[in-house]
Amino acid sequence: MILPSWRPGAARDRLVALLDASEEIPEEERLAVFDNDGTLWCERPHYVQEAFLIDALARRAAEDPALREREEFRALLDADAEAIGRIGMVRIAVALMELFAGQDPRDYTSESRAFAERWVHPTLGVHCEGLVYLPMLELLEELRRRGWTIGIVSGGGVEFVRAVSRRLYGVPPELVVGSVIEHELTDDGELRRTAKILGAVNEGATKVMNLQGALGRRPRFAAGNSGGDTEMLAWTAAGGGLALVLEHDDAEREFAYEGRAESFAQAESLGDTARREGWAVVSMRDDWDRVFPPAG
Amino acid sequence: MILPSWRPGAARDRLVALLDASEEIPEEERLAVFDNDGTLWCERPHYVQEAFLIDALARRAAEDPALREREEFRALLDADAEAIGRIGMVRIAVALMELFAGQDPRDYTSESRAFAERWVHPTLGVHCEGLVYLPMLELLEELRRRGWTIGIVSGGGVEFVRAVSRRLYGVPPELVVGSVIEHELTDDGELRRTAKILGAVNEGATKVMNLQGALGRRPRFAAGNSGGDTEMLAWTAAGGGLALVLEHDDAEREFAYEGRAESFAQAESLGDTARREGWAVVSMRDDWDRVFPPAG
Repeated sequence: MILPSWRPGAARDRLVALLDASEEIPEEERLAVFDNDGTLWCERPHYVQEAFLIDALARRAAEDPALREREEFRALLDADAEAIGRIGMVRIAVALMELFAGQDPRDYTSESRAFAERWVHPTLGVHCEGLVYLPMLELLEELRRRGWTIGIVSGGGVEFVRAVSRRLYGVPPELVVGSVIEHELTDDGELRRTAKILGAVNEGATKVMNLQGALGRRPRFAAGNSGGDTEMLAWTAAGGGLALVLEHDDAEREFAYEGRAESFAQAESLGDTARREGWAVVSMRDDWDRVFPPAG
Repeated sequence: MILPSWRPGAARDRLVALLDASEEIPEEERLAVFDNDGTLWCERPHYVQEAFLIDALARRAAEDPALREREEFRALLDADAEAIGRIGMVRIAVALMELFAGQDPRDYTSESRAFAERWVHPTLGVHCEGLVYLPMLELLEELRRRGWTIGIVSGGGVEFVRAVSRRLYGVPPELVVGSVIEHELTDDGELRRTAKILGAVNEGATKVMNLQGALGRRPRFAAGNSGGDTEMLAWTAAGGGLALVLEHDDAEREFAYEGRAESFAQAESLGDTARREGWAVVSMRDDWDRVFPPAG
């Protein structure tokens, strides 16, 4: 039986119907895109990429204590919630990007990979591969068997997601769309990271524009779990594709929290938007027989 | 025998050596990139995309004669070389992009494809598939058989190249990097083309930065034929990859002209740069037994 971790129900029925209809969709249009954090893997209590950045900061501060003099870094290193709140995430993110300015992109990839291999999730006690949702892996596999191309459209930094996407999901770098740091070419012809984001963070309408720019076509399936996915889901559904929203309502096996649809007029959860729009809604608690892969 | 259209010689030897060494390169790094115009297919007497734009203008002007009142369009419609020179290609290109502003990207793709299917080359008398270099198609096939990923990094508009890349080269849209027109998302959630180029035209250093941004890694093989490819070739070679330059020296079977390396201090041809740098140099006249596929 396909999709063994999916319990019988409306969500599974709609996925099976999509898989069954694959041949009616021209192969060129069989593009399925997934948000990453909270859709393909666990994003709580922090994004994995956030943990990577704080770890990278701590390693650099151990060698260069002067980094503590910068208040954005001190707040993070001390996990000082009050200071973090006062400084604001935008300034902190900008400061963190400066940590990597001048780095060769290959070194950034190696550093990301090394972190993703050694890091252990603070509450679930597993490595990255244990944070990936098993039902989603099953879905990727069935889509691929039917000639679908799988893309990831993440709000996170694209180079970090690419560093792990092939190992975790079988997705090559060119099929990962995310927030992009500009590079510059030095006089001796080498690429170096800058601290500047190219355009805007890959959320909301930007996800749609970057998806078209990077992959050149409209997906026939899109999955997401937070407000920043709303436009991509709506665009996919309006083009005749299936939009799917994952609801995190499983405090026992994962986490329970709402995805807020910031961009719709009403401040409703993305699940409520999905129900109103007729998109597929997946309850982690009710629709998934297993959440994570077996340890091993 | 592999590469049957390649005559024995230094160029072919280097390609065979690269193919033979494929297994020593991690599969993740087996990325080969090709410039498009003049490297994968004929770019003379005009870029195919230029012919597309002029054709699109003529079709619109036939329905809307008022378009002739704009001097950039009148110069093109009348093929008035003096006026074109006076106005300049930059202003003309900007005007042409405005022709498509507001268009749905799917319609732009359909219009590009329809053109590429009906158009006949003015001197060679063949359709697009007859303009593709047979030796390059053989190279793509052998690279793919050895687990290489093939990308196209073109100075042309990315959506036009994507409209034909799968049919002509077997390259899907996500592996085509080019000059990008910005899109905007309308209030009702639909994407529309604007007339604005995102960042810079995809030539020179921009090719390197866009390649990293889109494909996330450094290629181990790159091929080009003009000055705008220099930085991409140099970056590939500096990373331990093979850089290859195609020289157009075959007035009898194709065209004879020089690729100028604008960005190197000396105003030498790209072939001379390649010889100085120790890159592979391909003479169309001497190294290719056949240039184009058999008519079919």
